[in-house]
Amino acid sequence: MLLTVLDYAGIAVFAATGALAASRKQLDLIGFLFFAAVTGLGGGTLRDLVLGLSPVFWVADPTHIIVCVLIGLFLFFTAHRVESRYRLLIWLDAVGLAAYSVLGAAKGLAATGSPTIAIIMGALTATFGGIMRDLIAHEPSVLLRPEIYITAALAGACGFTAGQALGMPAYASSACGVVIAFALRGGAIHYGWTLPRYKPRPGRNPEDSLKKRER
Amino acid sequence: MLLTVLDYAGIAVFAATGALAASRKQLDLIGFLFFAAVTGLGGGTLRDLVLGLSPVFWVADPTHIIVCVLIGLFLFFTAHRVESRYRLLIWLDAVGLAAYSVLGAAKGLAATGSPTIAIIMGALTATFGGIMRDLIAHEPSVLLRPEIYITAALAGACGFTAGQALGMPAYASSACGVVIAFALRGGAIHYGWTLPRYKPRPGRNPEDSLKKRER
Amino acid sequence: MLLTVLDYAGIAVFAATGALAASRKQLDLIGFLFFAAVTGLGGGTLRDLVLGLSPVFWVADPTHIIVCVLIGLFLFFTAHRVESRYRLLIWLDAVGLAAYSVLGAAKGLAATGSPTIAIIMGALTATFGGIMRDLIAHEPSVLLRPEIYITAALAGACGFTAGQALGMPAYASSACGVVIAFALRGGAIHYGWTLPRYKPRPGRNPEDSLKKRER
Repeated sequence: MLLTVLDYAGIAVFAATGALAASRKQLDLIGFLFFAAVTGLGGGTLRDLVLGLSPVFWVADPTHIIVCVLIGLFLFFTAHRVESRYRLLIWLDAVGLAAYSVLGAAKGLAATGSPTIAIIMGALTATFGGIMRDLIAHEPSVLLRPEIYITAALAGACGFTAGQALGMPAYASSACGVVIAFALRGGAIHYGWTLPRYKPRPGRNPEDSLKKRER
Repeated sequence: MLLTVLDYAGIAVFAATGALAASRKQLDLIGFLFFAAVTGLGGGTLRDLVLGLSPVFWVADPTHIIVCVLIGLFLFFTAHRVESRYRLLIWLDAVGLAAYSVLGAAKGLAATGSPTIAIIMGALTATFGGIMRDLIAHEPSVLLRPEIYITAALAGACGFTAGQALGMPAYASSACGVVIAFALRGGAIHYGWTLPRYKPRPGRNPEDSLKKRER
Repeated sequence: MLLTVLDYAGIAVFAATGALAASRKQLDLIGFLFFAAVTGLGGGTLRDLVLGLSPVFWVADPTHIIVCVLIGLFLFFTAHRVESRYRLLIWLDAVGLAAYSVLGAAKGLAATGSPTIAIIMGALTATFGGIMRDLIAHEPSVLLRPEIYITAALAGACGFTAGQALGMPAYASSACGVVIAFALRGGAIHYGWTLPRYKPRPGRNPEDSLKKRER
């Protein structure tokens, strides 16, 4: 039951981010539905394929598609009322990331029993829909931005998996994972949290070398 | 038999659009074969993966690959004779879209019995090869252009699925779906048919707001 | 045993090219791990999905993921010591291409018995990780560059498959395939080997036509 809630919550908010991306591209209604479906269902589709669960979840139960269609339809007529569509997209994406990191980890753990696979599946489910959305919309991938993103999904999946390993009840480890992932990603959006980035060696810059020689 | 014809027709024309994309990028022969194969086989590959049909169709019967190779080879030596390669690409893509929307719907219906899944599979099979072609060729996706595209594939798949639900014989519902999809997409190419696009709220444009204030 | 060596060698060097791409984008540690995993595991993942081997190899044995994590970690702290990261990336990519073209062909041959499928699987396994790396990093795909690339993978897979068909022992046909693929790709990098590219019809260029008329 809890996982079903996370499932539909994740699909709905990711579908909404897809529809908002379509609104930024000024697409037609079918474009809204397409982006809603790709973003809402993409992560879970790759997860099921890779785990060998066949057919994938939305073929087994088309309700998921109907959720994407309703969300796309709703936003086609209401997206213009939102003050900052990009800001809404980013925050909904954070909610979806939190829900899917736990859901993916739960499905990975159920299918394989391996904590490593559970954590990877959490991160993969939470990020792949957004990657596809940005690729097809020709926007720079959210992965290349400096703020914490995959890290939040990994942390949420770790939180859930650790909770399960410690014998916590499912709702507690799920809540634990969702809170960790959302707190990290939300903090990254609001406060600009980043991890230390790779910096090329000082002096690698050709102009710097030139200046040194001139001295 | 009929589905086999649609299958090879779809592969051949999508492979041709891939080869024409390769000619626009001035690739070598292997580049032509690669783009022909990705575009010709991409949609059906995703369809089979998602439906859990394993292995995918072209692994089960490599004839499909040979068709792509022959088409790529042929166009490597003849594409320069075409007056407008882009126009040819767009029209062949319309033929492939019509054939694959029905074929995908037929495969989806056979595998699951669900009309919803049949329609989605029609649209997915008809569009994914072209999406991959545009992504890898670094060209703006055909999905982001204003003319009707996915809508035509959905309509063709609906036509076929409705025909089947009404108990029409397979060749009649197939013809029905192919004609609907091609008529819609062809009209979109020739007359520039579009669906109403999403428009941001009037007055959202900063310049407009400025003008209002000046009055 | 031999295939296991090729497997880990391919993963390690492709993971390294992914990490080097991450260093060029100045990502954080998790970005390094993500690109290492996508590039190292991408080709084999598509291969297993298409062949219907389920679950895919790295779900069945997470050691592969650990290799990617270690490589990504190592390069995060050492990539700045490399004089030309792009040159290293290109050469490691050539090693991975050679290893994966043979490994993919071996897996394709074992799963289907078809030489055609074996050769396609060799090329697909060797190239798909790099395609994903370039797509997600928003860099022009290695496929669109003029030098021989897919051709080398195809030739390596052909070499291995021919060796097996001739009854050569596995290590001999593997060595044969690896040497052919690496020699071709290495020559392409060092000497700029290319296949003849498609050239549009002379006189298609509008300026040329103009000049002719002026005479």
